[in-house]
Amino acid sequence: MHILIIGAAGMLGRKFAARVAADGVIGAAPVTRLTLVDAVAPVAPAGFEGDVVTHTLDLSVPGSAEVCVAGRPDVVMHLAAIVSGEAERDFDKGYRINLDGTRLLFEAIRAEHMRSHYMPRVVFSSSIAVFGAPFPAVIGDEFFTTPLTSYGVQKAIGELLLTDYSRHGFMDGIAIRLPTICIRPGTPNAAASGFFSNILREPLAGKEAVLPVDEGVRHWHASPRAAVGFLVHAATMDLAPLGWRRTLSLPGLSATVGEQIEALRRVAGDRAVGLIRREPDETIARIVAGWPTSFEAKRARALGFEAESTFDEIIQVHIEDEMGGVVAV
Amino acid sequence: MHILIIGAAGMLGRKFAARVAADGVIGAAPVTRLTLVDAVAPVAPAGFEGDVVTHTLDLSVPGSAEVCVAGRPDVVMHLAAIVSGEAERDFDKGYRINLDGTRLLFEAIRAEHMRSHYMPRVVFSSSIAVFGAPFPAVIGDEFFTTPLTSYGVQKAIGELLLTDYSRHGFMDGIAIRLPTICIRPGTPNAAASGFFSNILREPLAGKEAVLPVDEGVRHWHASPRAAVGFLVHAATMDLAPLGWRRTLSLPGLSATVGEQIEALRRVAGDRAVGLIRREPDETIARIVAGWPTSFEAKRARALGFEAESTFDEIIQVHIEDEMGGVVAV
Repeated sequence: MHILIIGAAGMLGRKFAARVAADGVIGAAPVTRLTLVDAVAPVAPAGFEGDVVTHTLDLSVPGSAEVCVAGRPDVVMHLAAIVSGEAERDFDKGYRINLDGTRLLFEAIRAEHMRSHYMPRVVFSSSIAVFGAPFPAVIGDEFFTTPLTSYGVQKAIGELLLTDYSRHGFMDGIAIRLPTICIRPGTPNAAASGFFSNILREPLAGKEAVLPVDEGVRHWHASPRAAVGFLVHAATMDLAPLGWRRTLSLPGLSATVGEQIEALRRVAGDRAVGLIRREPDETIARIVAGWPTSFEAKRARALGFEAESTFDEIIQVHIEDEMGGVVAV
Repeated sequence: MHILIIGAAGMLGRKFAARVAADGVIGAAPVTRLTLVDAVAPVAPAGFEGDVVTHTLDLSVPGSAEVCVAGRPDVVMHLAAIVSGEAERDFDKGYRINLDGTRLLFEAIRAEHMRSHYMPRVVFSSSIAVFGAPFPAVIGDEFFTTPLTSYGVQKAIGELLLTDYSRHGFMDGIAIRLPTICIRPGTPNAAASGFFSNILREPLAGKEAVLPVDEGVRHWHASPRAAVGFLVHAATMDLAPLGWRRTLSLPGLSATVGEQIEALRRVAGDRAVGLIRREPDETIARIVAGWPTSFEAKRARALGFEAESTFDEIIQVHIEDEMGGVVAV
C-alpha cells in the first residue's frame, strides 16, 4: 500500500504516520510507501521500513495536486487546512487553501481516473464546525449543516464535493467529522478551544493552567489516539454500507469541564487540580457557547468507529503516549 | 430600484421581469432600471417604463460577473443554472456554470463591496434537489442535504457560499428552494418531471398527454405565479429574522398524480381527463421515486411565503395566466 498524507506536518498527520510506521500495515495490507506533503517540510516517521517521499508545497497552487497524485497512492489522507480563526480573518486565504486546495486535489484524482481508472480511497478530515448554533443538546446524524465560520463552510463544501466525486466513481471517499482532540500535546496555544487540553496537560506536567469558562461548559472530545484510530478505520473499512451519504459525525465523549477536572483528580490527585487557576474570559465563554456539545454518532458507531467513554481513559492515553507513563505532579 | 436578473431568458426570469414591468414597483419601491442577463439574448418585458440593459454572456467566463454588477443593482436575482440532467452528463460544464458562475458572481459583488460598501440583496434560486433519498414523508426545515445529483451538490454549495458572503457583510442574501413548478407553460419537454405539467396543460388545450407513472406518485408543486411571488417576497422582505440560516425550503402543495387528475376533472371535466394516456415508463418511475414528496416549510410560511393550497387553484392560475381564461377542451 502506498499512502499519501496531505497535512503530514500537523499533529494528526504526524501521529498517523507514526502509527503506520509502527504497525507496518494498514488494515491487513503492508505499507510499502509513504508520500508526505505539507506546506512546511514533513519529517519521515521513525522506524518506517518502506520508501518515503516528502513534498513541501501549497496544495492550492496549480500543479501541486498533480504532484501529490502522480505516484498513484492507494490511500489519500487529506488533513490539510487553514484553521478556523485564520480562515475567518483572511477570507481569500481560507477559500484558497480549504476550498480550492481540496477541489484541485479531487480534480487531480479525477484526471488520473480518466486516464487510467485510478480510484483511491480518499479520507477527508471534516469538522463539527459544519454545525452552527442553535442546535439540540445531542446532534443527530441527519441534522442540517449551517456553519457560522468560513472554515465550517469550506469543510461542508469539501464533504459535498467528496460525495459527488465518489458517486461519479472518480474516487472512493469518506469525510469524517472529528471531535475536538483532547489532550492535545504541545504547549498552550491561542485557540479558543485550547483550555480544554491545557487544564489537563499542564497540571499533569506540574504546571499551572488557566480555566477561562465555568465548570458547567460541555464539549465533545476524543483523544489523539482515538483520532488516529478513526483515520486508520476510514482508510480501510468497506464504504459500500454508507451508500452516497459519505460523511460521518464521529463518536466522542461529551463531558463538562467539571467532569474533566474530576477525572484529573482521580488520575493525578488534588495537587494537580490545584494547579488550575480560574480566570473567566467573556470572549472565550461566548465563542464556546456556540459550539456543539454532543452527537449521537449512531451511524459511525454502527460502522465500527470507537472513541473513549470516560475522561479517565483520555487522560490515561495522554500519560501513556506523551509522558512515557509517568505523571510529573 | 435597479434589478439585475441573471437567467432572464428562462421561464421564471421572463415571468419575474413581466411581473416587475406590470407592477412598476417591487415591494413599495419604484423600479427604474432592469439589467437582463442570460446566455441566450434576453428580451425586455413589454410595458416597462424604466431603462432596460441586456447582456448576452456566460457568467462563468472571467469578467462576466463584473459586467453584471458594474451598474450596482440593488437586487441581484440569480436564476441561472445548467439543469439537472445536463449537469449530471457534463460534469465539467455543470461545475463551471452552476458552481464557478455563482462563486464568480458573489466574488464580483464582494469586490464592489470592498471598493464602495456596495451591499445588494441577492436572491439565489436553489432546489429541492439538495435533498437525496431516503428521507421522511414530510421533510422538516432542519433535515440534512445529501444531494444525489451534481446539480443538487452545486445548489447546496451555492447556499453555503451565499450564507457565508452574507455573514461577512458582503451582500444580503437569501437562498430559496423552489418546489417543482406546475403547470409549466410551453410544450412537453424531455425532463423526467415534465409529465406533472403535461397531464394538465395538454388536456386543457384539447391535446393528449402521456402519464408514465402510477396515480399514487406524490410530489411537491407550486404554480409559476406562486414562484414569481416567492422571488418578489425574497427580494423585498426583511432578512434579519433569518439570522445566518439564509436558506429556506419554500411552501408548496403536496399532491398525488391521482389528486392532480381529480382536480383536472373538477375544473375541465371528464373529456379533459380522457386525454391522459397511461404509458408506464420504468426509468421515469425510478427517478421520480427518489424525489421528495412534501416539506413542512414552517420557517418560510412564518416569514410570509405563500403557495397554493389546492390543485384546482394551480390549474385556475394556468387558465388565467396562460390561456386567457378560456379552456380549450
